[in-house]
Amino acid sequence: MRSKDYVNLGMVGSGMMGRYHSVAYSTIPVMFDTSIRIKKKVIADANEELAREAAERLDFEEWVASWQDLIGRNDVDVVDIVTPNDLHAPIVCAAAAQKKHVICEKPLALNLEQARAMHEAVSRAGVKHCVSFNYQKTPAVLHTKKMIENGKLGRIFHFRGQYLQDTGINPLTPIGWRHQSSRAGSGSLGDTGSHVISLAHFLLGSIREVTAMSETFITRRPVGDSDGEVDVDDAVSFLCQFEKKALGIFEASRFCTGRKNRFSFEINGSEGAVFFDWERSNELLFCNASAATSEQGFTRTVIGPSHPYGGALQRIPGIGMSYVDTVAIMLYEFLQSLFDRGKPHPDFSDGVAVQAVMEAVQRSASNKCWEKVCY
Amino acid sequence: MRSKDYVNLGMVGSGMMGRYHSVAYSTIPVMFDTSIRIKKKVIADANEELAREAAERLDFEEWVASWQDLIGRNDVDVVDIVTPNDLHAPIVCAAAAQKKHVICEKPLALNLEQARAMHEAVSRAGVKHCVSFNYQKTPAVLHTKKMIENGKLGRIFHFRGQYLQDTGINPLTPIGWRHQSSRAGSGSLGDTGSHVISLAHFLLGSIREVTAMSETFITRRPVGDSDGEVDVDDAVSFLCQFEKKALGIFEASRFCTGRKNRFSFEINGSEGAVFFDWERSNELLFCNASAATSEQGFTRTVIGPSHPYGGALQRIPGIGMSYVDTVAIMLYEFLQSLFDRGKPHPDFSDGVAVQAVMEAVQRSASNKCWEKVCY
Amino acid sequence: MRSKDYVNLGMVGSGMMGRYHSVAYSTIPVMFDTSIRIKKKVIADANEELAREAAERLDFEEWVASWQDLIGRNDVDVVDIVTPNDLHAPIVCAAAAQKKHVICEKPLALNLEQARAMHEAVSRAGVKHCVSFNYQKTPAVLHTKKMIENGKLGRIFHFRGQYLQDTGINPLTPIGWRHQSSRAGSGSLGDTGSHVISLAHFLLGSIREVTAMSETFITRRPVGDSDGEVDVDDAVSFLCQFEKKALGIFEASRFCTGRKNRFSFEINGSEGAVFFDWERSNELLFCNASAATSEQGFTRTVIGPSHPYGGALQRIPGIGMSYVDTVAIMLYEFLQSLFDRGKPHPDFSDGVAVQAVMEAVQRSASNKCWEKVCY
Amino acid sequence: MRSKDYVNLGMVGSGMMGRYHSVAYSTIPVMFDTSIRIKKKVIADANEELAREAAERLDFEEWVASWQDLIGRNDVDVVDIVTPNDLHAPIVCAAAAQKKHVICEKPLALNLEQARAMHEAVSRAGVKHCVSFNYQKTPAVLHTKKMIENGKLGRIFHFRGQYLQDTGINPLTPIGWRHQSSRAGSGSLGDTGSHVISLAHFLLGSIREVTAMSETFITRRPVGDSDGEVDVDDAVSFLCQFEKKALGIFEASRFCTGRKNRFSFEINGSEGAVFFDWERSNELLFCNASAATSEQGFTRTVIGPSHPYGGALQRIPGIGMSYVDTVAIMLYEFLQSLFDRGKPHPDFSDGVAVQAVMEAVQRSASNKCWEKVCY
Repeated sequence: MRSKDYVNLGMVGSGMMGRYHSVAYSTIPVMFDTSIRIKKKVIADANEELAREAAERLDFEEWVASWQDLIGRNDVDVVDIVTPNDLHAPIVCAAAAQKKHVICEKPLALNLEQARAMHEAVSRAGVKHCVSFNYQKTPAVLHTKKMIENGKLGRIFHFRGQYLQDTGINPLTPIGWRHQSSRAGSGSLGDTGSHVISLAHFLLGSIREVTAMSETFITRRPVGDSDGEVDVDDAVSFLCQFEKKALGIFEASRFCTGRKNRFSFEINGSEGAVFFDWERSNELLFCNASAATSEQGFTRTVIGPSHPYGGALQRIPGIGMSYVDTVAIMLYEFLQSLFDRGKPHPDFSDGVAVQAVMEAVQRSASNKCWEKVCY
Repeated sequence: MRSKDYVNLGMVGSGMMGRYHSVAYSTIPVMFDTSIRIKKKVIADANEELAREAAERLDFEEWVASWQDLIGRNDVDVVDIVTPNDLHAPIVCAAAAQKKHVICEKPLALNLEQARAMHEAVSRAGVKHCVSFNYQKTPAVLHTKKMIENGKLGRIFHFRGQYLQDTGINPLTPIGWRHQSSRAGSGSLGDTGSHVISLAHFLLGSIREVTAMSETFITRRPVGDSDGEVDVDDAVSFLCQFEKKALGIFEASRFCTGRKNRFSFEINGSEGAVFFDWERSNELLFCNASAATSEQGFTRTVIGPSHPYGGALQRIPGIGMSYVDTVAIMLYEFLQSLFDRGKPHPDFSDGVAVQAVMEAVQRSASNKCWEKVCY
Repeated sequence: MRSKDYVNLGMVGSGMMGRYHSVAYSTIPVMFDTSIRIKKKVIADANEELAREAAERLDFEEWVASWQDLIGRNDVDVVDIVTPNDLHAPIVCAAAAQKKHVICEKPLALNLEQARAMHEAVSRAGVKHCVSFNYQKTPAVLHTKKMIENGKLGRIFHFRGQYLQDTGINPLTPIGWRHQSSRAGSGSLGDTGSHVISLAHFLLGSIREVTAMSETFITRRPVGDSDGEVDVDDAVSFLCQFEKKALGIFEASRFCTGRKNRFSFEINGSEGAVFFDWERSNELLFCNASAATSEQGFTRTVIGPSHPYGGALQRIPGIGMSYVDTVAIMLYEFLQSLFDRGKPHPDFSDGVAVQAVMEAVQRSASNKCWEKVCY
Repeated sequence: MRSKDYVNLGMVGSGMMGRYHSVAYSTIPVMFDTSIRIKKKVIADANEELAREAAERLDFEEWVASWQDLIGRNDVDVVDIVTPNDLHAPIVCAAAAQKKHVICEKPLALNLEQARAMHEAVSRAGVKHCVSFNYQKTPAVLHTKKMIENGKLGRIFHFRGQYLQDTGINPLTPIGWRHQSSRAGSGSLGDTGSHVISLAHFLLGSIREVTAMSETFITRRPVGDSDGEVDVDDAVSFLCQFEKKALGIFEASRFCTGRKNRFSFEINGSEGAVFFDWERSNELLFCNASAATSEQGFTRTVIGPSHPYGGALQRIPGIGMSYVDTVAIMLYEFLQSLFDRGKPHPDFSDGVAVQAVMEAVQRSASNKCWEKVCY
């Protein structure tokens, strides 16, 4: 076996995403055929207690009580940022200035301008960058990408993407940072819609223009004994034209009773079609339009060794596919890029592109006109 | 048993819809508890041969070779019009002038103006009228209506409606009347989209405004050795605001590989949600938001005796639900209205309302602005 | 058009099955390309009132108050028997003696001996005979048969058949003829299990031997103010070996909470597999084992014009498939056989074969040994 | 935070299961609220090279080239055995003699006698023991258990369990240890059927007697240029009576085209029913028999925070459930038991019970009689 490629990791934040990333780092050497080994050097959180606990739980060697103390350290190669959205820009820019490679949670920024500045910062610094649109690394999605490239779907007519949840319906759910534009940038649009947009970019390319509609169904929510204003969207939908002439229809909502984590897409082309729903992350439906009419329809394939990364993670087909698996693939590819000089995907240019669509959607929802996307 | 209520029927047209209606008329006395009996008096088709064959096959007593010869007959009470769209207006107006009750295939007319004229004609004549949006009579749809009225869905946030087929994808399919605006009025919009719009009206009420997009993917199709222009939409999608504040998202397309007859809708409300897909016409998915969290989700109910008309048609739950069943319910209710003086549903006012939405959609798709619906 | 082939029909019984058959007879000339025309001559029921009402509702020309008055009439060619099981044998034998062609509800008889006598009676009389295993005429089933014959499934390893309902669970449901061996012969075994057995015969051929288990979960049920004994099975299951070496696993039950009308089967072969569930009567799942591994799985096909009888009944794929449709196909084929001298299917030999398996199952459940089937 | 509870781990074997266990050990401190920390001390494999590579990949501190060198070490508290079946007994017995706690892959042994000896060995040694029926720790299964205990299913009528795969169909697949009774004990019965049996024990308790059938479809398979005998079952099915009076029906097969990893069960009771399929490991279908008839059916619930261990692993409902997640729960509970003196589940008594059923099944399949289970 070749000698190991060690990467020293610093993490900022230790919430749910911090945990998932942490397990993913442990998964990489075990499940992939790789010489990469990750050293969990230091973790930062909002205060001493949180940081210490995080270090113990996530098995980091050290902890610091502010991200500023982390990004300057010589023993950190990569900074993984799993914080609320408003902290992305300052940490990224400071880390880039310290020549750290950066991984940043999605959406990249609070707005397009900020996203561009972040992209410029990492580009100028010459560091590698990744924005955590991990769902793109779902084997079913990677397989779809391959099928499109191989012409298996033919000319594409329709893209239909949704991310539907029911998390907003209870009016007693207190205000959190996800309800505030100053901290989140937007609501369902950035939180879950951004995943759908990044996916559409990955599979079909650029979006020319959009017409959108959004709504805030519950405008005030409890804060302690009082209440506060929700100034982000609870739901957003838009139609679009892709540069490649396909029609797109998108929806993200926190008000879909009965839908827990429905991140789904369907693509209809002249030669075939696919359907995917993350709630059945293990499955890809594929329709082969050249099958005999009497045998035509969506075939439910279960992800296994014959699909991308199946040989690593899904050696028995149907063995189960978790969120962590997709994060592991994304981080693995990113870490690889540090050594093989490849371009990781998705990177900040993808993050900026998503932000450009989100801004066009917000403009259109506000002025009720079709809006061009300014990538 | 009370004495029978006889209705003398004249039918114009004898294609696939003529057949389905014909079986539906036979079904009514057998399956419903009704005194109504239908006498199939006379059928008209485009020429002698077609008309004679139709009479034999569909068991009408007589045939005539033009609809003009049918509508004036004294032995006809009801005229059932199952012709291409361009013939609806002339036949309806002539039949109304002869004081015949009329049943008309959907969409009602080639455009809004024509639809209004037809509605005026039947209103002036004082005859009963029905437009054949038969899918509204699906027991699953009728049950949904009841649940909405009973508050089982609560405040409604989202309506999501689709009618997706793959009938347009083969470029060698020759031009037919459904590809020509002069004969069909529109393409997928009127052919299948109108079903979704009528359903949305039935369940949620009026639509305030729309933003739309449409596309003709294949603009020329074979006619004999040459080809001709397709001047209707192959696909259309639109977003809308309902008067009741819910958000709507609609799609109709003939270019959805893998989708054969996907007429589906989902409604998400504060207290519950429903999902229906005609390809599983027998099922209704219902989510009760007040169930314990650990037991919450969509419940797949199979239509049976406890659902509307189940006692008549679905005495064993899950026994199967066909297109004819929905036509039978619609025609049964219409024929009932001749005797009990009720208002049949859907009638021409519903047909006009659908046409108003369709016109707003067409305007919006053409001028790329939000358009108010002018009911 | 050729001249019509008229068939004069007598029906015995007018319950739910009588209704379904009646609509099916009306469907045949309309939907199939046939010269056959059915004249509903006379219907018999248990008393005058029932019979008169039945004639009015089902549109028979005349009625009689006993089946004995029906079978001798000269104006009756075919007798359709839709009565409880204990009346099958006497009516069939008397009708055969009068040289009437007979259609008989399933299961054919109360036991194997009786079934054989009935088969002998119709054979001796030289009349045509049909036993109403109508589910075999589901287009999805007919298509499966064709695929097996064409080798699309290859060598067959497994047959898995179920008919699961929940009709028995409520202990307050009063005793009916279906709970009494003297009137029904058996319980779930004959009522629904017989459909599964007939299907297995149709698709895979003879069964060599069985090992079975049965249970009566609720042994007494209300009769008026008292209660009576249930002496038939509430549930039965058995394993079997087919002559063709495949393994079979069968289940019928009235105690399956959550299952309304789950008549399902799965066949796994070396080249392919199929799955069907009547609750989705419109669908057939087919797995093509020679598809690329990454695209392999069950394809959900929706029944349409490319499937058996789709051109008649399912001109639009996914238009819906009802119980009546399967009855119409069965009766159409039977009536055809009166003119083209073909052998209708399923006939009484099929009814006897099913009864032979049922008897082996009952023996095995009682003596707890493997039992050979004595066809 | 309380001080850590360290456990020193030794692992024997490093194949696929070794990898999954390894990731699971990393998951435990991160995702669960626990003070347990695992030190990966030493790993053994069949030779130096394999063992060294395994240590590097799975991040063990040391490696040894034989299991004998591992079990005697003072720095090992727990031995995790992820080897082929024939090695389970010798390693377990030797480890127990050294007072090591043991985790053993399923099925526990090659036969019942051996299983009993292993159980005696660990009992005598007073060490903790676990047999890796990890599927029992699926949150959907744990939730089912809770529902049964709370009476949500009422009196249970039916248990229906399957483990269906297609791994055996290709006749060119060479012989492996899973095809040889000397190394595996049995075929599909022990490999996958044992999971279903252990599940049935967990949920419904003891099985009184069984009638079984098994088959080897392909009796010789390639070994290099020659071929060898397959002397285990390719498929097995059996009926059974539970002590609690419910009826059971079981199936395991490697010859089910179209089925990749279908480990499914259904339980029908007087008050409710559940259905689960591992291919949708994230879902549990539950039917509440006391719901209104028109709203009754299987509700598809997505596993989330309200289900067992959801708060740890599934904080967002529908986030995905992998094989590793179930292993992590099982190992977490086992490691907990080292400190809180609880009884881990499933332990070797469960492994013995499964083996007792398997032996009854084998006897019945061979002598074609019902066989009592001798626990």
